[in-house]
Amino acid sequence: MHGDRLLLGPGPSIPYPEAMEALSRPVLGHLDPEYLGVIAEIGDRLRAVFRTANALTLPVSGTGSAGMEACLASLLEPGETVIVGINGYFGERICQVAQRGGAQVVRVEAPWGTALDPADLLAAQRANPQAALVAVVAAETSTGVRNDVAPLGPELAKTDTLLLVDAVTALGGTRLEVDAWQIDACYSASQKCLGAPPGLAPVTLGPRAVAKVRGRSTPIHSFYLDLGLLQDFFLSSPPTYHHTASSTLAYSLHAGLGRLLEEGVEEVWDRHARIGALLQSELPELGFSMVADGAARLPQLTATLLPEGMEEGPARKRLLTEYGIEVGGGLGEFAGRAWRIGMMGHAATELSVVTLLGAVRELLKA
Amino acid sequence: MHGDRLLLGPGPSIPYPEAMEALSRPVLGHLDPEYLGVIAEIGDRLRAVFRTANALTLPVSGTGSAGMEACLASLLEPGETVIVGINGYFGERICQVAQRGGAQVVRVEAPWGTALDPADLLAAQRANPQAALVAVVAAETSTGVRNDVAPLGPELAKTDTLLLVDAVTALGGTRLEVDAWQIDACYSASQKCLGAPPGLAPVTLGPRAVAKVRGRSTPIHSFYLDLGLLQDFFLSSPPTYHHTASSTLAYSLHAGLGRLLEEGVEEVWDRHARIGALLQSELPELGFSMVADGAARLPQLTATLLPEGMEEGPARKRLLTEYGIEVGGGLGEFAGRAWRIGMMGHAATELSVVTLLGAVRELLKA
Repeated sequence: MHGDRLLLGPGPSIPYPEAMEALSRPVLGHLDPEYLGVIAEIGDRLRAVFRTANALTLPVSGTGSAGMEACLASLLEPGETVIVGINGYFGERICQVAQRGGAQVVRVEAPWGTALDPADLLAAQRANPQAALVAVVAAETSTGVRNDVAPLGPELAKTDTLLLVDAVTALGGTRLEVDAWQIDACYSASQKCLGAPPGLAPVTLGPRAVAKVRGRSTPIHSFYLDLGLLQDFFLSSPPTYHHTASSTLAYSLHAGLGRLLEEGVEEVWDRHARIGALLQSELPELGFSMVADGAARLPQLTATLLPEGMEEGPARKRLLTEYGIEVGGGLGEFAGRAWRIGMMGHAATELSVVTLLGAVRELLKA
Repeated sequence: MHGDRLLLGPGPSIPYPEAMEALSRPVLGHLDPEYLGVIAEIGDRLRAVFRTANALTLPVSGTGSAGMEACLASLLEPGETVIVGINGYFGERICQVAQRGGAQVVRVEAPWGTALDPADLLAAQRANPQAALVAVVAAETSTGVRNDVAPLGPELAKTDTLLLVDAVTALGGTRLEVDAWQIDACYSASQKCLGAPPGLAPVTLGPRAVAKVRGRSTPIHSFYLDLGLLQDFFLSSPPTYHHTASSTLAYSLHAGLGRLLEEGVEEVWDRHARIGALLQSELPELGFSMVADGAARLPQLTATLLPEGMEEGPARKRLLTEYGIEVGGGLGEFAGRAWRIGMMGHAATELSVVTLLGAVRELLKA
């Protein structure tokens, strides 16, 4: 017995039907020319979604956390400084991953539920001009907050400090412009707004980031997540064998991206904006309130405080067991009193909104 | 257009039909009780295949190389010594991964195509009693050689040196007894003899290895591959969120292991032994010769030197393009003059042997 699920949590979201169908195709070897052709097409499709011309654009064989670690491990040498924007769980995770790799972390913080001020990050860079990297989460999955990363790139481009953006929840959901915003490195994940199952982490590196990876004086601590080796494998001819990458996941991401591009990148952003606004306009009628204020609020991931008297854990469990609907619990200071509701990718529809609100109305009756 | 493939290389192999079918099931969240139940059952099934009672038995979210790095990164602290058995490509990879993590490597070598002498590894441990780890590949995928790891555990159990065994190609193909052989840590991969698609790396740690992971004085350099964090996620109640693990791959591995256990672990070893012997008895009739001698030769992965006059690259390309059959090229000193033929998991059948030999006969006519 396998339960049905309407996945409206912080991810995974329900994949596009095309992405599910692609899973059933015959498995290909990781050096098969047909597989490497798919990787090349995934690169093209990812470039369209990342809005970049970066040659080094590929799917890392792991989840979004693997993409994060691949970028931090590849772009930072031990002892180097990284300035990290922190206003939620995933900013904290960037610190942890960087510190495990031996980097020095300069923290730039804002309260959970509010946005980082880009001016604070730029000021920290001016105070630490030796910093190798500024790292920021564009869409904080823990709080539903959008951080404005657009102003950072043009200023950092004048310095030796690179810009790394976490786009795990952002990519394909809200505007993200890797080239126009002069982002040096960016990672995401297959299972949120891209509409594929989990297991792959799209990564793109611009010329300054590639030069950093190629010009290191120390080896990258991770072999599995070494973006230089991954470039030699996925993007070189002939490929240098690195690991047994999964054609199954690749075909599925390829198909999810195909569906996304058929709709259009800007059209997909518009759909997420419309569905998020609909959800966020209706939730208060049921007694919910928003964690983030309007300007900082993401459409694809809504963190919402529960109505007085509604017990978070039991209500969330009833949603799952009685209706097969998954939402996420709050994190940090919002644990036990908030939900995180994702309307992402294939699940970003009017149907998801009315289904969820209908079920919540039933819960509120009990 | 998606090509059909008879995967007879060093992996991936063709998954069991049950494992392909499982890919189509609805995606579940990584904290869904139903998903965590599947992880628990995968643990039970892996324990049956690893022949262990180890509680810490789980699928790492990556390929076999991720399993290797998870074990080395989690079991070694910077500056510690690891004794590595090296008689092929994957022994060399263990050195690379360990060195990137800051370990000191003591090399114990045998020529490619021959087996390591367990006495050499034990002698190296006596000469380096401070060594934290002895690491050996049970089935060298690069040369088709079986290394006898059974004598190592009982001796190392008397010391403070742990035993790590690479069972990427061994598990489910040839006898491997984690508990009876006193192996402290072992990793494998989903896509070879286990009969599932690539993307997951089964890992098991015994009590000494768990104590090592939990008693470290330095953090593990990798967050993604930290086996302590993975234990807290997959095997603790309530689970501590770590990453968005893929229910799709989990269900598929679950189904592949189910099929394997239905046949029986010893019966699967017997099948691999029978099919490998059949292939290896027929290849010489076509002018092929074996890289490894009889005692050291694996049944599930055969490295074979090509007949005089047969050009390796063009012949392998014709096999793929004209017949849809994938075999692997030789590595290292065998590059350009050998093939690596896998008869693993679902592909370990008489039909695979006659199909391959039939196609090769056609190639030899041309």
